[in-house]
Amino acid sequence: MSSVIPVLEVFGPTIQGEGAVIGQKTMFVRTGGCDYRCSWCDSAFTWDGTGKSEALTAEEIIERLDTLAPASYGHVTISGGNPLLHKGIGQLVNLLQARGIQTAVETQGTFWQDWLKQIDAVTISPKPPSSGMKTNWETLNKCLTQLDTRQVSLKVVVFNKTDYRFAKEVHHRFPAYEFYLQVGNEDPTTADQQKLMQDLLQQYEQLIDWTMNDKEMNRVRVLPQLHTLLWGNKRGV
Amino acid sequence: MSSVIPVLEVFGPTIQGEGAVIGQKTMFVRTGGCDYRCSWCDSAFTWDGTGKSEALTAEEIIERLDTLAPASYGHVTISGGNPLLHKGIGQLVNLLQARGIQTAVETQGTFWQDWLKQIDAVTISPKPPSSGMKTNWETLNKCLTQLDTRQVSLKVVVFNKTDYRFAKEVHHRFPAYEFYLQVGNEDPTTADQQKLMQDLLQQYEQLIDWTMNDKEMNRVRVLPQLHTLLWGNKRGV
Repeated sequence: MSSVIPVLEVFGPTIQGEGAVIGQKTMFVRTGGCDYRCSWCDSAFTWDGTGKSEALTAEEIIERLDTLAPASYGHVTISGGNPLLHKGIGQLVNLLQARGIQTAVETQGTFWQDWLKQIDAVTISPKPPSSGMKTNWETLNKCLTQLDTRQVSLKVVVFNKTDYRFAKEVHHRFPAYEFYLQVGNEDPTTADQQKLMQDLLQQYEQLIDWTMNDKEMNRVRVLPQLHTLLWGNKRGV
Repeated sequence: MSSVIPVLEVFGPTIQGEGAVIGQKTMFVRTGGCDYRCSWCDSAFTWDGTGKSEALTAEEIIERLDTLAPASYGHVTISGGNPLLHKGIGQLVNLLQARGIQTAVETQGTFWQDWLKQIDAVTISPKPPSSGMKTNWETLNKCLTQLDTRQVSLKVVVFNKTDYRFAKEVHHRFPAYEFYLQVGNEDPTTADQQKLMQDLLQQYEQLIDWTMNDKEMNRVRVLPQLHTLLWGNKRGV
């Protein structure tokens, strides 16, 4: 018997818009519930009560994926909220891997579940000061050290210079891990897609500029969110 | 004594705008000369006589890099033209690796040099029909099989549906390698950056659409050229 997982959205196939597997053709499973309340969260519906989650078993989630992409997906991204709140995801990961499907997970690294070791691409994204959240370095360290350096990457979203300094601290505390700087979306509700795209590209250029002029940040990658450039704040793409 | 390398440009630090190391902070060394004449080549100055190359030793190239980014780079991308025409690059790679600097190379996979085995990230990009070039599968196969699957990725630029079918053929002939589809830049000389960006995003969405609806293309990544979205057709960024 599977334990149930609170699920907000199952969608795809689409591209992964950010981080270490940027551009990857993937299906998305977005779980509900988060231990964080980031001021600029672009998926606040997963924790602020505005989104209604369904309690699904791993088998039911697979059925949804199969309906969306009949016998036709090779990669699934589990995002949230914070998926690490849910032990039951282990069963979903087992079922996917039994079919040879690759997996990716996005989390802030505040909780641990043993199933995380099975994930092909784990993105750990400590939240910068602009989020209003505070990183517990010991907890983050515990999470990282249980994973293989080849399977995990660190990602920090940057909205301003204070966030950038935080990103540097993360990179310098954990230099062995692939490190990604990502442009923050300052307006996750606007419908003016044209203006959003222009603003994001401008902020991306700014972030590149800071990084290129910083001798302490040479082994890093700087990326935008491709899905936001393409589709603005639309959900389920 | 080093043999000399014909060099067109040395620039950076900037980001790698495409492929497997997209977003990476890197320096660029662009070599002159190419065995191909792609109709839409965005660096035609490397082979059409409009760009003047300098014959530099590996040590002189390192000096240029050090001047651009004094003691401050961790990654160098060697591009062309086709850098595989030049045996002398081996010495450059040795010097960079002695300093702990990571390397990437871009080539179409038509020539072989032993130094290619030392490169951290090799991108092999067979050219689609719209280029006017023809792929020799045997030569490509020989090049790929001498490299480790973890160090090499395949990339195909796509301008139209015929190119897309070629990309599928490449992926299906060599399924063990990470595979990237990339939007082609149809107007590599225009100065109208705004229009170029809009067109590229539209073509990117089209390419995503083809790939998402194609059950034979599940383990692939679809990416734009980030530098073109940011800076249009400007050289040296």
